[in-house]
Amino acid sequence: MTVNFTDIERAHQRISHLITKTPLLNSPRLDAIAGRRLWLKAEPLQVTGSFKFRGACSAISALSSEALRRGVIAYSSGNHAQGIALAAKLFKTRATIVMPHDAPANKVANTRAYGAVVVHYERGVESREDIGADLARRHGLSLVKPYDDPAVIAGQGSVGLELSEQIAERELSVSAILCCCGGGGLSAGIATAMAATNPGVTLYTAEPEGFEDTARSLSLGERVANETEQGSICDAIVTPIPGEITFPILKALAGGGFAVSDDQTLRAMRYAFDTLKLVIEPGGAVALAAALFADNLPSSDDLVVIVSGGNVDEAMFAKALTIS
Amino acid sequence: MTVNFTDIERAHQRISHLITKTPLLNSPRLDAIAGRRLWLKAEPLQVTGSFKFRGACSAISALSSEALRRGVIAYSSGNHAQGIALAAKLFKTRATIVMPHDAPANKVANTRAYGAVVVHYERGVESREDIGADLARRHGLSLVKPYDDPAVIAGQGSVGLELSEQIAERELSVSAILCCCGGGGLSAGIATAMAATNPGVTLYTAEPEGFEDTARSLSLGERVANETEQGSICDAIVTPIPGEITFPILKALAGGGFAVSDDQTLRAMRYAFDTLKLVIEPGGAVALAAALFADNLPSSDDLVVIVSGGNVDEAMFAKALTIS
Repeated sequence: MTVNFTDIERAHQRISHLITKTPLLNSPRLDAIAGRRLWLKAEPLQVTGSFKFRGACSAISALSSEALRRGVIAYSSGNHAQGIALAAKLFKTRATIVMPHDAPANKVANTRAYGAVVVHYERGVESREDIGADLARRHGLSLVKPYDDPAVIAGQGSVGLELSEQIAERELSVSAILCCCGGGGLSAGIATAMAATNPGVTLYTAEPEGFEDTARSLSLGERVANETEQGSICDAIVTPIPGEITFPILKALAGGGFAVSDDQTLRAMRYAFDTLKLVIEPGGAVALAAALFADNLPSSDDLVVIVSGGNVDEAMFAKALTIS
Repeated sequence: MTVNFTDIERAHQRISHLITKTPLLNSPRLDAIAGRRLWLKAEPLQVTGSFKFRGACSAISALSSEALRRGVIAYSSGNHAQGIALAAKLFKTRATIVMPHDAPANKVANTRAYGAVVVHYERGVESREDIGADLARRHGLSLVKPYDDPAVIAGQGSVGLELSEQIAERELSVSAILCCCGGGGLSAGIATAMAATNPGVTLYTAEPEGFEDTARSLSLGERVANETEQGSICDAIVTPIPGEITFPILKALAGGGFAVSDDQTLRAMRYAFDTLKLVIEPGGAVALAAALFADNLPSSDDLVVIVSGGNVDEAMFAKALTIS
């Protein structure tokens, strides 16, 4: 199973009336800080506050009416949950969401506010995959995986379609994209779209230090797992191991991966507040942190940075605002 | 002197390659809080963090090469200052900015970062108009007023051109717009654009309580002044009296004005953080506060809210994040 450019175009046709075409933002002051020209694809402005709404709408819009009648199930630390919950509501089906016990309170509350039923599990002890598969089997629900699902990857690839339009409109000279990476659905979708529309552009992943399973897997040429899933502020993008479907795509197309510290991530959030007026959650800010602070960045006259989500609670954001 | 639709179209032609076409954002969760469907025109995402960059580019792009050689001068509490400073840099001219002594530190620092020279005055004691006119005379500088300047109003009107496109694209049913209002340049520009493109749409102004000179002037049919310019958290939109050019436009086209409390404004900022992932400054949030909390709002299936700027410092934003 893989995803090709036609899948992305078809997904985009199914979802374009539901999603926000997010802006590609530039700030002269941020460029001065970065020492290079940055263009930020602002997915916090996507409906439900992250790119996940794209994949959720793509997957649910592809279901049969019989499947929609029975309902969908998903497991998620929060952003996929919110995307699925709202997409399910829009397509008039019911959503059950399996969330870790330590998911941020605002993500749990928002998921419920969109009308979904939330079931908790203990991260690091129980397997959300097993819980999800079991509930799906018992109740006849369609499982929409957060990244290892071709329809989800195709939906995330709509970011790449928008990007190729925006790069052309602004006549940008782009040879590299930095993308926040958890399971790899967004990165794989964008890389696939770029390979078809802008073959001179290479995607690089960004992850939190200590949880850079994708960077290590790309470096080794095979999937390796993180040692733990606990202890990161970047809850949105901590996953056990690169996806079975996403990793072969990234192995073929991605240029490599970067890892950033929590301190760098919080500083990137503060810079985005100050210069872009954009609220970014930690997991959504790692690519910007890499653009600002990583060594050995790829050369690109215009460097595109995917800012993937903004679902951060007040306490964590206040922490970012006071970092020096 | 007034501004017509052709002036706005010409200004848009001069500046469209420099400005960001800001998105029109919707959030189902914010709609649930408001009890109505809201569409937020997100000018914090404009270059320099507010709509003021539009008017600044419009005015400076209309100057002669001789005027550009001598330089420009402006007075501003901060947002016009930043817009003029960057626009001057882009058009390769020098900017001198007269700012109040109590302007937010981040606005002063950013104005200097864009390359402008900052001159301070004491708000409420000295007249920034006199200081600006005097410096302009002595050094042959072109004064770009913050709102009572046809080229500035025409530039702000580009928000209205974008809105009419976005309303058509999304097939919205809009009969009212709420707009943050200081001197009235943005409101007058948008109202003029709407009168030409969407004559069924009426603009209403929003201001801080105690500083609602425009609401009172519209109600009385003549320009009346605020009793004081000091004591508001909405520094960006506290002006002494509606403009000589802007007020006749608003008197002819606007439906009236709303006033909101500081507490309502801070709550609107927190809701925007949570649901839109957008950083809004107090003065830029009064129209959203009116949409959420004011009585007797105009009926509109889709209510458009102009969010005018996001240049808020960390301390004020942290205050908004902790308001209950």
